[in-house]
Amino acid sequence: MPTNRQQLLDNRPEGEATASNFKLVSSETPPLQENQVLVRHHFLSLDPYMRGRMNDAKSYAQPQPLGQVMQGGTAGEVVESRHPKFAVGDKVVGFGGWQEYSVVDASQPGTLRKVDTTHVPLSHYLGAVGMPGVTAWYGLVKIIQPKAGETLVVTAASGAVGSAFGALAKARGCRVVGIAGGADKCRYVKEELGFDDCIDYRQHPDAKSMSAALKEACPQGIDGYFENVGGYIFDAVLMRCNAFARIALCGMIAGYDGQPLPLANPALLLINRIKLEGFIVSEHMDVWPEALAELGQLVGSGKLRPRESVAQGIEAAPEAFLGLLKGKNFGKQLVKLV
Amino acid sequence: MPTNRQQLLDNRPEGEATASNFKLVSSETPPLQENQVLVRHHFLSLDPYMRGRMNDAKSYAQPQPLGQVMQGGTAGEVVESRHPKFAVGDKVVGFGGWQEYSVVDASQPGTLRKVDTTHVPLSHYLGAVGMPGVTAWYGLVKIIQPKAGETLVVTAASGAVGSAFGALAKARGCRVVGIAGGADKCRYVKEELGFDDCIDYRQHPDAKSMSAALKEACPQGIDGYFENVGGYIFDAVLMRCNAFARIALCGMIAGYDGQPLPLANPALLLINRIKLEGFIVSEHMDVWPEALAELGQLVGSGKLRPRESVAQGIEAAPEAFLGLLKGKNFGKQLVKLV
Repeated sequence: MPTNRQQLLDNRPEGEATASNFKLVSSETPPLQENQVLVRHHFLSLDPYMRGRMNDAKSYAQPQPLGQVMQGGTAGEVVESRHPKFAVGDKVVGFGGWQEYSVVDASQPGTLRKVDTTHVPLSHYLGAVGMPGVTAWYGLVKIIQPKAGETLVVTAASGAVGSAFGALAKARGCRVVGIAGGADKCRYVKEELGFDDCIDYRQHPDAKSMSAALKEACPQGIDGYFENVGGYIFDAVLMRCNAFARIALCGMIAGYDGQPLPLANPALLLINRIKLEGFIVSEHMDVWPEALAELGQLVGSGKLRPRESVAQGIEAAPEAFLGLLKGKNFGKQLVKLV
Repeated sequence: MPTNRQQLLDNRPEGEATASNFKLVSSETPPLQENQVLVRHHFLSLDPYMRGRMNDAKSYAQPQPLGQVMQGGTAGEVVESRHPKFAVGDKVVGFGGWQEYSVVDASQPGTLRKVDTTHVPLSHYLGAVGMPGVTAWYGLVKIIQPKAGETLVVTAASGAVGSAFGALAKARGCRVVGIAGGADKCRYVKEELGFDDCIDYRQHPDAKSMSAALKEACPQGIDGYFENVGGYIFDAVLMRCNAFARIALCGMIAGYDGQPLPLANPALLLINRIKLEGFIVSEHMDVWPEALAELGQLVGSGKLRPRESVAQGIEAAPEAFLGLLKGKNFGKQLVKLV
């Protein structure tokens, strides 16, 4: 039985999350029962939603339990199997958590999914061709419902969700404008991801300045907005929205540390007859096959070239996660475990 | 030619609107051209949206022009006609403005509508069986899309929109809870309008207290909300919304005086995967016939007994309007002109 190193949630953050909220432990993986599979994780996905679960607050998901392995998506390889449909060597994606191995009851539907790494690298199944990609797809296709020629804006544009959003929007003939932090990320968003423009929010640290930058980047106004961040950028976007704009509300990173971030002028939602919808992609499993098929094609054909920030080793997970919350990552944040 | 007294917008409010923003003038009505109709207004409708148009700000409607007759809905009688489809004595509803008479080009579609006062009193065509009633209908049927057994909340419950909302919601088997100002209005909302409960916001002047009152009145949480007011009540409702709640955003009275009213915790929209939509009923003329038919039946059968506050004479319009903005009216606010 291999030794399994695990990151537990040791205590809950008071305000900002810190490395001391986590605890690294080791244990032996248990012998497999019937239908169980032992997966060795190659990659662990780090995602902003995890910060919300660290709080003991009412939310859409149960809080992450204290003293247990941090939950999260994983991609890896079957190293032992007592389930007829999984063989040693199969590449699989699951929800194995912040640890090097997981024991999975593969008879439960949806716990483990075999993936084909012929055209798509394994790690991308945690990003562009995984949960973040489907998140972008759902917000764009089901909520924003864009028409060709419309102008769309997405925050965290260089990240896993934002980059997929851009490629999906361009494929539908839209003008797409990203918002990202720093000149390097903005250059990547425009030159490699093919966005029409990108605004560096570090140059525009308040709603008034951001609104002026949006006016320049979106001369026809904003028809659709994919919200990953919250706070003053949301305020600025609302000031530039056209009548009948649609807003997909997916993340509010800026508020995860406990302080609620107000929306300065919600009357704009009425004045511009805006439709806004909050969503969680795991509640819309019916769209995943269609979304993953399109995303796989975009990646396979080179139209979507997702970038990754890769930390090495389970011991590096907490710092990589805290960096993600501060925008230090560049593209999809992963931890490589092998 | 009869003398026509008119209320003009003389100057724009700075902060709160006051009587000095208006100016009463007299003129002679001009002789009719072909296809024109002279209407003597019996009732003038006063509505919260008018406050927004008094500002010179970007909004869904053009600002009310300075020095011109205040715009607004009217119900009256044809007193002279050069249009073949309108005869002297016809009862009509239109958008004649704050004046005693209007000259209408009846060849323009939608400017003048004949109404039947056999079962529905003329004034109700400005309220329950008019724009406010259709507003309630659209928000309920097209945005909230309620299921029987769900709990719905509406602000300004004793007003023209709120009372129609209650009757329409009860007809669909919902639990409906109103919010209104004062014990008298709350009693009327429960006893005469048939709401399941009503909360007096004067007893709950902040979001925390209002949220506690909502918890008691909505033990199963809130599934749908019709927003007429904005401000702390909106904050409190969001704290009690169930997952997948729907919010129809129709008015933000509290913010009309210029100061934007922030929304304290927009992250709740995401946490509860809420769908929110701002709308203006005049952009959805296709639903009016269906809505008016249902509203007419509810009024005709006594299931909706709308209450009216009636001021007398064109000179009383400004004070009646300012009172409406402060919630001094009780039911639909009208000015009777004959």
